[in-house]
Amino acid sequence: MNKRIIISIIGKIVLTEVILMIPALLVSLAYQDGDAAGFIYTMVPAGIGGLLFTRVNHSGQRMSSRDGYFIVAAAWIIVSLLGALPLYLDGVFPTYWNALFEIVSGFTTTGASVLAKPEELGHGVLFWRSFTHWIGGMGVLVFVMMVMPMENDNSMHLVRAEVPGPTAGKLVPRMRTTSMILYGIYGVMTLVLAVLLCLFGMAHFDSFCIAFGTAGTGGFAVSSAGIAGYGSLAIEVTLGVFMLLFGVNFSVYHLVLLRKFREAFSMEEVRVYLVIVAAATGAIAWNILSFAGGIGNALRQAFFQVSSIITTSGFATVDFEFWPEFSKHMLLLLMVVGACAGSTGGGMKVSRVLILVKSFVAEIRQIINPKAIVTVRVNGKPVDKKTLSSTRIYAASYMLLLCVFTLIVSLDGLDFTTNFTAVLSCFNNIGPGLAKVGPMANFSVYSDWAQVVLSLAMLTGRLEIFPMFLLFAKSAHDR
Amino acid sequence: MNKRIIISIIGKIVLTEVILMIPALLVSLAYQDGDAAGFIYTMVPAGIGGLLFTRVNHSGQRMSSRDGYFIVAAAWIIVSLLGALPLYLDGVFPTYWNALFEIVSGFTTTGASVLAKPEELGHGVLFWRSFTHWIGGMGVLVFVMMVMPMENDNSMHLVRAEVPGPTAGKLVPRMRTTSMILYGIYGVMTLVLAVLLCLFGMAHFDSFCIAFGTAGTGGFAVSSAGIAGYGSLAIEVTLGVFMLLFGVNFSVYHLVLLRKFREAFSMEEVRVYLVIVAAATGAIAWNILSFAGGIGNALRQAFFQVSSIITTSGFATVDFEFWPEFSKHMLLLLMVVGACAGSTGGGMKVSRVLILVKSFVAEIRQIINPKAIVTVRVNGKPVDKKTLSSTRIYAASYMLLLCVFTLIVSLDGLDFTTNFTAVLSCFNNIGPGLAKVGPMANFSVYSDWAQVVLSLAMLTGRLEIFPMFLLFAKSAHDR
Repeated sequence: MNKRIIISIIGKIVLTEVILMIPALLVSLAYQDGDAAGFIYTMVPAGIGGLLFTRVNHSGQRMSSRDGYFIVAAAWIIVSLLGALPLYLDGVFPTYWNALFEIVSGFTTTGASVLAKPEELGHGVLFWRSFTHWIGGMGVLVFVMMVMPMENDNSMHLVRAEVPGPTAGKLVPRMRTTSMILYGIYGVMTLVLAVLLCLFGMAHFDSFCIAFGTAGTGGFAVSSAGIAGYGSLAIEVTLGVFMLLFGVNFSVYHLVLLRKFREAFSMEEVRVYLVIVAAATGAIAWNILSFAGGIGNALRQAFFQVSSIITTSGFATVDFEFWPEFSKHMLLLLMVVGACAGSTGGGMKVSRVLILVKSFVAEIRQIINPKAIVTVRVNGKPVDKKTLSSTRIYAASYMLLLCVFTLIVSLDGLDFTTNFTAVLSCFNNIGPGLAKVGPMANFSVYSDWAQVVLSLAMLTGRLEIFPMFLLFAKSAHDR
Repeated sequence: MNKRIIISIIGKIVLTEVILMIPALLVSLAYQDGDAAGFIYTMVPAGIGGLLFTRVNHSGQRMSSRDGYFIVAAAWIIVSLLGALPLYLDGVFPTYWNALFEIVSGFTTTGASVLAKPEELGHGVLFWRSFTHWIGGMGVLVFVMMVMPMENDNSMHLVRAEVPGPTAGKLVPRMRTTSMILYGIYGVMTLVLAVLLCLFGMAHFDSFCIAFGTAGTGGFAVSSAGIAGYGSLAIEVTLGVFMLLFGVNFSVYHLVLLRKFREAFSMEEVRVYLVIVAAATGAIAWNILSFAGGIGNALRQAFFQVSSIITTSGFATVDFEFWPEFSKHMLLLLMVVGACAGSTGGGMKVSRVLILVKSFVAEIRQIINPKAIVTVRVNGKPVDKKTLSSTRIYAASYMLLLCVFTLIVSLDGLDFTTNFTAVLSCFNNIGPGLAKVGPMANFSVYSDWAQVVLSLAMLTGRLEIFPMFLLFAKSAHDR
């Protein structure tokens, strides 16, 4: 490993986080909520440390693919450890570990909270908490690339490790331009959403926080009443539609900007994603018909919840813990599927599920015609062997890790539905689960150590498994 | 598809089943339990039909690999439909579908029952129910091969579809000799177990029924008290050890018979299997220490339950529904792992889990050293690409099907823990689940249609997914 280049990039990341805390600090000062000191105590030493790190001379060193994975995993951990400080210093969280869970939940865009009443937090901290959704959604490193100059090769290694999905793409040859385009689209869409929410009567502060949470497919509410508290059909529909939009592969929007409409609308993953949303909404609406009182209400509730869960946002307008079992099971299934690759959503990703289902069908065709050469095609093109193999290994690893995390967390003594859905929810970066971690409950039912384990599950899920494990693996060069 | 050869082999299968019902008929006549008529009403028409089918002229037709899968899937369904008749005619089961669930549970060696009190059944039917465990454990088609002459090539196609595990092996070149060796070892071990159980004070009838259930890793008890009812440490330890033995790859016993001890003991799968058993027993014993009253009792209960669950037998000496959550979660994990390939046990199989875990590690090594050629090795030899790919597709399909079956069954309105563990238990051919289908409960909580769905889950799991789906797939030759 090339230690000096790693240290220097981590310095840049810490500096970027300090800069990102400035808006929250300003909010805190504007509302005079007493949290400004907490931000300053974090920002000053972190800023000095970050500056010193960036000064490390790394001329002549080149980053390896392995270094990229290492930096991404280390960066996410460091950014979380630092980001939790202002929350802890606010005084509402009983322990630092609770604050850490909350901020990891923020950056990974999980949106699971340990607070029954988030409104007890100061405005600055509330803003920071929602803002981490926005940063984490598109990617911490992708943001760093935009604001700090970096070699193009190095950037590519980082993107491959941070951006979700079976294959890492770039929109344009230069990574810095790619990250600017991505954050540009992302920023404009977020702004449009925030303005719409204001227009529909939401308070300015809430509008921005909820817009950040929607854009990053996070799901932190700013009050215990959640989205239901605004009691507005317009707000609900707007959020439902925007969650779906942020769950779409961002390269679609890039294609639209380039006026390549045909290419944009021919993406198989996006079409399958929309079909799943429509089918699940229909099935749930039919299932909750008698509970919701009328087909209109049923469709409204079903659409919002399906959109919220498949995009892994995790906002709730109703307590689906009381829905019939089939609807609850359907939501769990959507948690596994997740949003599109290259979006801000989590989960397995529609493209992976598509490859797996097609692999299943291909295996059957292979058994029927043993001598035929059977290929798996997505978007009309055969998927290359490496992507096929890594997608299948991903699915198997996903299953192994779900089992292991659930087993560890069970030592805390809660029931199977709670543990399994809590792990499912954290690992896929959703937010709510079922039973004791249902949409109107929170994760304070878990003890501190279990919250740390669940934080690791969130990070492992957000970074798609491998970077976290590479932290502990030895490179051939190190031996 | 070569219809005439398929019909003729199905005729042989039906005839074999009629022959296999003879012992149960004799038991029924000996105990004068009134079930004899039910057997005769089944056997006479089935025997005539089977004879007519075998007469179909198929000279010149050769079986394809696809035909093999088709025959195996069709055979298991037909054998179950016929085998359920004597149970239904006994009169204890409210509907034919309940009886079908029970016999599918028998043949697939699941051991899940819809009866609270199996002792209400006549002795003949009780015997038949346990005997189906014995036949299903080693394989219905493997038995047919032994008693009816068949071409060697044709047999190989059937074995590949019926015998569990990532690769199908044969012990000797001729399949008929292989099946004779397998059933020989199997029969002797079952007899030794039955005699031991008699010596330790179990009634003769119970000894044989329980020995059949243990050998096939089934798990049907003959009374509502289950194994705990015998109240004997000797019986418990004997069963615990024999369940483990029947979960070992039978090629180990063949190697031992050939005095190839070194090869026998060097099988990585078997060693990993024993390590898992030891580790899980230790962890559960530690976890239930305060419940069990002393380390001796804790180890005794933990060992029996671990052995019962990992081998997918499903016998219970304690109601583990009341164990601490960690122990329950550990048992669920063992359900997924299952026994060794080439044994009578179900589940994913230790060898598949081994390949998956090693694939995970290999993927990490590949990321660290992108240019290295990383291989997955089992037993010191690299696993070939086809086995790697089909194992990973198997794992992904396993996960997809678990999700789909759980979703369908949820329409019956039961809670998530019950539905998920019921599907897990049926799909892996275990027997008990948790909550409403716990070890002291039964599957009558599900309605008839859900029992049919769970029966399909048992068959899909027993035949390792693909044969069941090939039933509905079209061959290129058929178009």
